[in-house]
Amino acid sequence: MRRLIPAVLLFAVLGVLLGPVTGLWATGSQGNEREETAVADTDHAASGSAGEEDASHGSSDEGSHGGHASPVTPVLLGLVIILIAAKIGGELAERFHQPAVLGELVAGVVIGNLALLGITSFEFLGTNEGIAILAEIGVILLLFEVGLESNIGEMLSVGASSLLVAILGVVAPFFLGWGVSAWFLPDENLLVHLFIGATLCATSVGITARVLTDLGKVTTRESKIILGAAVIDDVLGLVILAVVSGVISAANTGGTLASMDVLLIVLKAAGFLVGAILLGGWLSPRLFRVFSRLQIRGLLLTISLSFCFLLAYLANVIELAPIVGAFAAGLILEDAHFQDFLDRGEHQLEELIHPITTFLVPVFFVLMGIKVDLSTFGEKGVLGFAALLSVAAIIGKMVCAFGVLEKGLDRISVAVGMVPRGEVGLIFAGIGASLVLHGQPVISSAIFSAVVIMVIVTTLMTPPVLKITLARGERRKAG
Amino acid sequence: MRRLIPAVLLFAVLGVLLGPVTGLWATGSQGNEREETAVADTDHAASGSAGEEDASHGSSDEGSHGGHASPVTPVLLGLVIILIAAKIGGELAERFHQPAVLGELVAGVVIGNLALLGITSFEFLGTNEGIAILAEIGVILLLFEVGLESNIGEMLSVGASSLLVAILGVVAPFFLGWGVSAWFLPDENLLVHLFIGATLCATSVGITARVLTDLGKVTTRESKIILGAAVIDDVLGLVILAVVSGVISAANTGGTLASMDVLLIVLKAAGFLVGAILLGGWLSPRLFRVFSRLQIRGLLLTISLSFCFLLAYLANVIELAPIVGAFAAGLILEDAHFQDFLDRGEHQLEELIHPITTFLVPVFFVLMGIKVDLSTFGEKGVLGFAALLSVAAIIGKMVCAFGVLEKGLDRISVAVGMVPRGEVGLIFAGIGASLVLHGQPVISSAIFSAVVIMVIVTTLMTPPVLKITLARGERRKAG
Repeated sequence: MRRLIPAVLLFAVLGVLLGPVTGLWATGSQGNEREETAVADTDHAASGSAGEEDASHGSSDEGSHGGHASPVTPVLLGLVIILIAAKIGGELAERFHQPAVLGELVAGVVIGNLALLGITSFEFLGTNEGIAILAEIGVILLLFEVGLESNIGEMLSVGASSLLVAILGVVAPFFLGWGVSAWFLPDENLLVHLFIGATLCATSVGITARVLTDLGKVTTRESKIILGAAVIDDVLGLVILAVVSGVISAANTGGTLASMDVLLIVLKAAGFLVGAILLGGWLSPRLFRVFSRLQIRGLLLTISLSFCFLLAYLANVIELAPIVGAFAAGLILEDAHFQDFLDRGEHQLEELIHPITTFLVPVFFVLMGIKVDLSTFGEKGVLGFAALLSVAAIIGKMVCAFGVLEKGLDRISVAVGMVPRGEVGLIFAGIGASLVLHGQPVISSAIFSAVVIMVIVTTLMTPPVLKITLARGERRKAG
Repeated sequence: MRRLIPAVLLFAVLGVLLGPVTGLWATGSQGNEREETAVADTDHAASGSAGEEDASHGSSDEGSHGGHASPVTPVLLGLVIILIAAKIGGELAERFHQPAVLGELVAGVVIGNLALLGITSFEFLGTNEGIAILAEIGVILLLFEVGLESNIGEMLSVGASSLLVAILGVVAPFFLGWGVSAWFLPDENLLVHLFIGATLCATSVGITARVLTDLGKVTTRESKIILGAAVIDDVLGLVILAVVSGVISAANTGGTLASMDVLLIVLKAAGFLVGAILLGGWLSPRLFRVFSRLQIRGLLLTISLSFCFLLAYLANVIELAPIVGAFAAGLILEDAHFQDFLDRGEHQLEELIHPITTFLVPVFFVLMGIKVDLSTFGEKGVLGFAALLSVAAIIGKMVCAFGVLEKGLDRISVAVGMVPRGEVGLIFAGIGASLVLHGQPVISSAIFSAVVIMVIVTTLMTPPVLKITLARGERRKAG
């Protein structure tokens, strides 16, 4: 009891006086805005601000007496469904000797298409922004993790092959797509064929990176060629889109393609990659040396994550994919940079990142599956074109096999690794649908559906096929 | 080359045929809706669907040539800022021998109030929904982690103290707040005083749990009493809000309080807690035994996270705080349940959870700081009432010290641990602002500001004061 009073006093005096005394508390009147602010939105429910709480409670007559309704509620339920579906799918896939990622994708496809059977209660999974952001952070960290397994020197040593693979993997699908389009849709404008060709150029490296991780192949030279080629491919994709969009816009206005724009895009992208690697490589060891003087726990993980997110953000700012930045961040970081942390007993960075990717990466792939709309396959008159487009998309990337300069490597697996189009192809097609040529969208509704099917086919087929070609490549090397 | 052709064929045949052949692909035409669907929104940019991509590209004339703009972009930048601020704040706090969480809160307060100095570029941090969801998952996992350090038996062994602490910590602040309000605002309606009293009852256990974790005290009996009391407090808070809101609504309509509603809330909350503990305790070992037969990696972490999220979700559904569910999940899970996983070489669950909380927990506390609006302190005529309210809030919870039945425990620290109101107090006040009595909001703008200050004071003061009282309690035990 005697100790109670001093504690109360200490608390009360410190507490109440703190406000007016310290220079921290700025002055200014807020009027009606005050409800937008302050400590709301946090521990308990973290819904909107107190103001939003007002709104929701003010307007509901259904006896909600305070409670904790919040935007996190559907995210929690979504995570439970997705995580369990991922593990069931992954387990089934592994029982059939397939990479776990295939099971996650298929689990997602099943969940995402239950609406076709009249079960609509899972539809929020595909539209919830919180889940989408968690998924995105998952794939960013996956590529970061994959980048950590390699370094810049190793990537440069296969640089020539990566460059050639990327270029072949852009040129071949482009002309094949153009050809298929010109043959199947003879009445369409040349620019439509061009755009369809461009749509086939994309590579979505997330799937491949994940398959390589699942199968423990991520440190092979083949993997490095694929990953390097995917980075270059992302840059080339930007350029092609810029050129094709520019040509279409020039055709509409009667002007000419602004080649300066295209040059600028190339310079920005190349500048980012070279800058990140040079500056990052110079800065990273120095930064970690400074930070290693700090005492606080968990610093290695936090600084590494910050570095990854920063490069992902910067990549995104110049319109590259965030995963390209995250991969670059992983390449730059070397165990040697944070030896001081390891010496004082912190875990290896890989060990710290791994539980986070175990949590978040499956969210990405299940969500990717959820977004697959199987009803596209039922659209009339689409399947024929979709089949041709898929074949063109696959053969186009198989040409990448010729880009591998090193002898004795498993070229087929490199080519197969470049096949999945994932969302990148869809983003391209989406842009095409938004571009207008002579009053018509360049990518019509039917063409868009065909592209969607091509994306589904190339994405879902890669895990099993890559597993087969990798096993064959290994037998050949051993034999 | 000879190997290229079979691979192409394998891919093409499997791929193209898969669609029409398997029963998976349902039929049905989509028409214009198809753009809302399919694999968009994923690897690269994961913005909205392809349809949204259309919109954004269709409408922008600023030369955006495809790129990867996405809702994740501001989240990435926000995480970089928040994570680095958290570590700088944490490091400074530890240099001054304070818990790291105080540094994180203050770092957040500084960032959140830069707008007062005219720097508005950080304002998105406080309003971004993605960051709010990550923060919320952070505090959910913090309470899960804290729950893992204890078990149901240990909690029940201090159950009587927890109950008494919770009841005292609700009754005393309620009457003190009522008294302060009646004395300072003599012209207000009795129901206004009632509501202000109710606002002082809340406990936000996130801060306390984090301080205990920072200081390595989370397994002490005092901690268990606080945590148990916080869970009970959350239930009591629901009841009080229901009663007070019911009384006000009855005063407006001339009806009477629907006591069945109140009973229902109590039954639901008690049912959830007892049900979770009984059913969860029975189910958990059986569930893990089944899952341990699966082969796939990362299962222990994923199942445990799913269990945590599920209970957090269910708690939220019946209007308890998600952290109450997460804490219950942590209590239920025992190392013994997943011995099979440990035997086959998976890491301890705590080791797997820890990197995730290292990443996400600071996001929560920095964001809590960001939401503090210092300009509230500058509002005219508010400070006096705010000071009185803060003293009432602090003394009210210090009474909790008398609720500790066990001899030789550090009662003062238990009481101090109950002091922070965090966002829970604000949610209460927000509801008060939305309730209308005789055409006026029950909690006026000035009263709301005073409550905000009380919340800031009790929240920011707890880490340093708790550190002092804990050290004193330890010296006393040792001496």
